[in-house]
Amino acid sequence: MIYDFPVYEIKTLDDNCRKLAQQRIDNKTKPPGSLGKLEGLAALLAQMQAEVACQPPQAIQIKQPTMLVFAADHGIARQPVSIAPQAVTGQMVLNYLNNGAAINCFCASNDMALEIVDMGMVEPVADVSGKLVSARAGAGTEDFSVQPAMTFEQLLAALESGNQIARKHIRNGSNLLAFGEMGIGNTTSAAALLVLLEDLSVVQAVGRGTGISDEQLQLKTDLVRQAVERVRATHRVVSSQVAMMEVGGFEIVAMVGAMLTAAERGCSILVDGFIVSIAALLAVRIEPSSRDYMIFAHRSAELAHELTLRALAADPLLDLGLRLGEGTGAALALPLLRCACAFYNDMATFESAGVTV
Amino acid sequence: MIYDFPVYEIKTLDDNCRKLAQQRIDNKTKPPGSLGKLEGLAALLAQMQAEVACQPPQAIQIKQPTMLVFAADHGIARQPVSIAPQAVTGQMVLNYLNNGAAINCFCASNDMALEIVDMGMVEPVADVSGKLVSARAGAGTEDFSVQPAMTFEQLLAALESGNQIARKHIRNGSNLLAFGEMGIGNTTSAAALLVLLEDLSVVQAVGRGTGISDEQLQLKTDLVRQAVERVRATHRVVSSQVAMMEVGGFEIVAMVGAMLTAAERGCSILVDGFIVSIAALLAVRIEPSSRDYMIFAHRSAELAHELTLRALAADPLLDLGLRLGEGTGAALALPLLRCACAFYNDMATFESAGVTV
Repeated sequence: MIYDFPVYEIKTLDDNCRKLAQQRIDNKTKPPGSLGKLEGLAALLAQMQAEVACQPPQAIQIKQPTMLVFAADHGIARQPVSIAPQAVTGQMVLNYLNNGAAINCFCASNDMALEIVDMGMVEPVADVSGKLVSARAGAGTEDFSVQPAMTFEQLLAALESGNQIARKHIRNGSNLLAFGEMGIGNTTSAAALLVLLEDLSVVQAVGRGTGISDEQLQLKTDLVRQAVERVRATHRVVSSQVAMMEVGGFEIVAMVGAMLTAAERGCSILVDGFIVSIAALLAVRIEPSSRDYMIFAHRSAELAHELTLRALAADPLLDLGLRLGEGTGAALALPLLRCACAFYNDMATFESAGVTV
Repeated sequence: MIYDFPVYEIKTLDDNCRKLAQQRIDNKTKPPGSLGKLEGLAALLAQMQAEVACQPPQAIQIKQPTMLVFAADHGIARQPVSIAPQAVTGQMVLNYLNNGAAINCFCASNDMALEIVDMGMVEPVADVSGKLVSARAGAGTEDFSVQPAMTFEQLLAALESGNQIARKHIRNGSNLLAFGEMGIGNTTSAAALLVLLEDLSVVQAVGRGTGISDEQLQLKTDLVRQAVERVRATHRVVSSQVAMMEVGGFEIVAMVGAMLTAAERGCSILVDGFIVSIAALLAVRIEPSSRDYMIFAHRSAELAHELTLRALAADPLLDLGLRLGEGTGAALALPLLRCACAFYNDMATFESAGVTV
């Protein structure tokens, strides 16, 4: 069945272009390296936006940055693995549509477009705003502690929805897609994916999510262990595709598709917290060159996020102790990207400013 | 002479107001604490902006945020303690006036006003822009390794200039003043101040600034040690005022005055890197309640900055490996403050959004 999986043709970025961009940065009126992480960020954006290989552009910019929040329900959440009941997924999606959530506030404050996608909540929400994109791959996944989360057809459908949504925004002029998610129970799914992808211990990968009790943490750990044992007993080799189908979520799969499509089209990918980073890790395992297009926004309070970042060799921009999801960390990081463009484009050189080197 | 020093009447902020602001935040549609440092930031801004004591405001905002960059020269920089010759102070000030520096780019990108103040460079620069504020307390300080950096009259003049500049911007409607600085040699001054204020070892306080060699680091360390020994031999008690006069800089003193005036008027203070944090530490030693009004933007790459932050019990927002100064870290942090206001003001409550608690 693996042969039905789409192929993404992703161009590896040119390292020489990055070096030339860094040289350009080194001529700016500041001591070398003194802008810290902003310098690497600017060089990376230059590398991504180079129209001619080996030639960093004169100017870089973030065009129509768009936050895509993918929402879906998880069968595993019928068990008490979260602080919130499953109904909260739909309630929060309505909250997004009514501009009442943290992600709405941060996108508005930082001038970022926001699109909410229903990838398969238990029930469709009554959207009076007309803003919700419906791409439902089912009415939530199955409980992956006892059976596969989704069918292969659902996996492909969710992936294709992600592809299409990314294509739409890139066609409309966006060169930066940020990712967020909502789905009660999805840190449980992400933990199971992390264990299967990285062969970590279950205890390391399972955390408190948005703040569960000791008892819930024990249950969550037991369910992830049960799922991992079930999957390993079923499949001789657990590929990324198998892992997604067995223990993933529709929102996670859609993000994987959208990220791979973004990378294929040279569009930057702004990665939020644990769940989005797991989608990024899946994308990189499927097509390693997609890593070149990823910018990591923040380190969340969840330990498993740190482990995921390590697996991706990622050093994120922000460390604010966030543990909310929704794309909040990515939205908060956007102004840093704009500032990286601003100094790359507009700072004087030592020569032009008449500053003694 | 201590009696001539101005007195600042600074109101300690009300802790109960902060608790009530946190309660307001806890009713928002998110798990408690899940916005990490942004929550404390919002509660602090609410506490600062409360018009009625014990009552957090319905809405908070950052009004006319203004970056004040104070520039001055240091006698110590006649010795090779910096990567750049002393002339670079003036050259960089011209660069600011021509919008060519990193701080210009970040302020423009983050919609922040920028004012450059000449507190006493070796020579006045030829300002064709008409934007430079001249408040010169002298033509640079003296070499503090052998004599006091400034006279008591110069100390008072620089302090009063800081007071006046802060008053002007607050009167014009700003409720947030950010601080930046330029002055070749000023990490040497800041290191000496840190040793005198905190009784640290000279080796701990002296760092590479924007990137000096091993040999320069040794010279810088020796000069700071010499200065500290000179000051301790002269004064039985080294007060903050004495420390500023003996080893300070005009830009540092002006920042102390502006910060104390800002705190007196309930205006928020956004603190940048090592030099600005030393000014903050001086302000807090002079009037401890000024600490309540300070927001720390970033942790710089200079170890001495970390030590200064510890002395201030400060946990900054950003950690981007910056080591430039100019106010760059503070300018980069501004969007986080705006986002803190946005979620405090506009996020729905569990009740209003119909989300199950």
